[in-house]
Amino acid sequence: MRIIGSTPKEDGYYMPAEFREHRCTYLLWPEREDNWRDNAEPAQGAFEKVIRTIAKYEPVVVGTNKSQYQHLIEMNMPNVQIVEMSNNDAWIRDCGATFVINGRGGMRAVDWKFNAWGGLVNGLYFPWDQDDWVAAKMAAIEGADYYHLSDFILEGGSIHSDGEGTILTTEECLLNEGRNANMTKEEIEEMLKTYCGAEKVLWIPQGIYMDEDTNGHVDNICQFVAPGKVVLAWEDNRDDPQYMRSKIALDYLESETDAKGRKIEVVKMHVPNPVTITDHESRHVDIVEGSFPRNEGDRLPASYVNYYNCNGAIILPIFNDPHDQDAINTLQALFPDKTIEPIYARELLLGGGNIHCITQQVPRP
Amino acid sequence: MRIIGSTPKEDGYYMPAEFREHRCTYLLWPEREDNWRDNAEPAQGAFEKVIRTIAKYEPVVVGTNKSQYQHLIEMNMPNVQIVEMSNNDAWIRDCGATFVINGRGGMRAVDWKFNAWGGLVNGLYFPWDQDDWVAAKMAAIEGADYYHLSDFILEGGSIHSDGEGTILTTEECLLNEGRNANMTKEEIEEMLKTYCGAEKVLWIPQGIYMDEDTNGHVDNICQFVAPGKVVLAWEDNRDDPQYMRSKIALDYLESETDAKGRKIEVVKMHVPNPVTITDHESRHVDIVEGSFPRNEGDRLPASYVNYYNCNGAIILPIFNDPHDQDAINTLQALFPDKTIEPIYARELLLGGGNIHCITQQVPRP
Repeated sequence: MRIIGSTPKEDGYYMPAEFREHRCTYLLWPEREDNWRDNAEPAQGAFEKVIRTIAKYEPVVVGTNKSQYQHLIEMNMPNVQIVEMSNNDAWIRDCGATFVINGRGGMRAVDWKFNAWGGLVNGLYFPWDQDDWVAAKMAAIEGADYYHLSDFILEGGSIHSDGEGTILTTEECLLNEGRNANMTKEEIEEMLKTYCGAEKVLWIPQGIYMDEDTNGHVDNICQFVAPGKVVLAWEDNRDDPQYMRSKIALDYLESETDAKGRKIEVVKMHVPNPVTITDHESRHVDIVEGSFPRNEGDRLPASYVNYYNCNGAIILPIFNDPHDQDAINTLQALFPDKTIEPIYARELLLGGGNIHCITQQVPRP
Repeated sequence: MRIIGSTPKEDGYYMPAEFREHRCTYLLWPEREDNWRDNAEPAQGAFEKVIRTIAKYEPVVVGTNKSQYQHLIEMNMPNVQIVEMSNNDAWIRDCGATFVINGRGGMRAVDWKFNAWGGLVNGLYFPWDQDDWVAAKMAAIEGADYYHLSDFILEGGSIHSDGEGTILTTEECLLNEGRNANMTKEEIEEMLKTYCGAEKVLWIPQGIYMDEDTNGHVDNICQFVAPGKVVLAWEDNRDDPQYMRSKIALDYLESETDAKGRKIEVVKMHVPNPVTITDHESRHVDIVEGSFPRNEGDRLPASYVNYYNCNGAIILPIFNDPHDQDAINTLQALFPDKTIEPIYARELLLGGGNIHCITQQVPRP
């Protein structure tokens, strides 16, 4: 059922932290040839690895256009449920539902408005009508009522919650003219508090360097690992454009407190060395007017912070980079009871995101 | 998960009777304009009435092509879950899953091969590829493993089960050359026993007069109301072609015993007076090569036996006919604890079937 008049905050619902227990994980299946090279086959290989890995730890639901339904069924992946869910691309973190709970067994979904990261201003493709229905369809499958926002544009990858009243986001994304250009920062903050059931929003100024697709989603630069504690994508080299972005974020976070008045502890995770698109990779993407081009030499927004925190494991993107091991070690130290599952994720990065961007958790209510 | 090697019978699963308790009911949403007149709007009105009525008694899941998803959501029907489920037409009784249970809380699905009531021999439309996936998609949503039959063709409307070892079917349909022409009657009977977990098959020779779409599905002529007891579509007028069909069925049933050795008690339900297609109704159906035509004056296979037996109610097609009240009275006497819900169903009949044909129960395991 759609809930129009009321809000999660009024009804006592809030967005739990990703590191809390999940009922399951949703993904969508990639196929669009103007984003994923070589008929999306290499990307599908990477998605399959992510799906099979998460499914070792919690149930997985994979939504797909009807065209790929049989392909997925034939893969016969254990602990994975295949459902039809039309979509324009596979970024369910961004177009999917944000689930909220009330701490007494109740769960609902928030169905934000989605406009492909900027709509007609600077969106990545047209149309995005099927993406915009994904949240409602997830809610239906979960049997959850949902709050339907017909105007307010938000992607799930642009927010993190500590589950204790604090939301983490970036100004670069949420104040971008392709989203809610007619709203002030204060009005946007109020919407986040109202629909995530939170009391405070922390605004990191910018996302990762060259994360132009999403206009600097927070989920590529910073993630809660516990209430009052985050990991932050870091760069030691002061000549790299990433350095100043990370430094500004660090200074901001260390100057702030969360909703409970705690200081924020920041754990740095160094980004990999610059990853750029090869000529071959660029040429094997179909060119379609209105879709975002993938050009040789473009630097990609590679970051270990775009990991997914599921029951019993951290699903971590790695890049065959000297920094991979540091990221593994950092997360293992932060989550001693979880298995670190590194997955080589260049194909996901080529599509514009990474493991966190293609997953969406359903909390255990 | 697909189960290929094993069978319900081996695994201790059987098809329960429709009159036993359900978890829910599935329907598909009609839209094809070469079958449903006036852009399927009148049919959608009839479907909506059926959906809302069943939803008073048990949860309803409605599958739809993506084109009609929003339309359905906006209808905001209580106790109804909308899911995306691509289909070629809306006859889920026939293309959907047959659920089997083991009496110990287990439930699985049987995914028969579907070929649009006759495939390239005498099928009603082409293609039928999306219909053939409906059973697997129902199983996925129910979280049920399923037996996948890659060759054996069967529609759910061509069988009834008493849940105690007896399956009811018709020779006219199951021996039709458009189904399993390479199999003998004995081989087909063995498949029914194996996949419905049954011991005996009762073969009524023919279905209702002019049920040419389905080649005489049993669900239009005869249905179990209890183990050892059926209702049979009847015609008193010996000059009507229906008379001999019903008489032959009656004689057959009265000469037989069920799997438990019981004689079959037959309750007659008189069919309505002949219903024919009007000129107006015929002209408002789009003509598409390869689809079954709807011509003025064609007699339609109207029958009260095509009711749906859900939790607490009988959803009964009526035709503004003098025999309506008799059908209501007969069923009320047979099911004193259930509410009889008569629904004017001419629009469903114009499409080639009725309430039973557009519904499919999921038993409570």
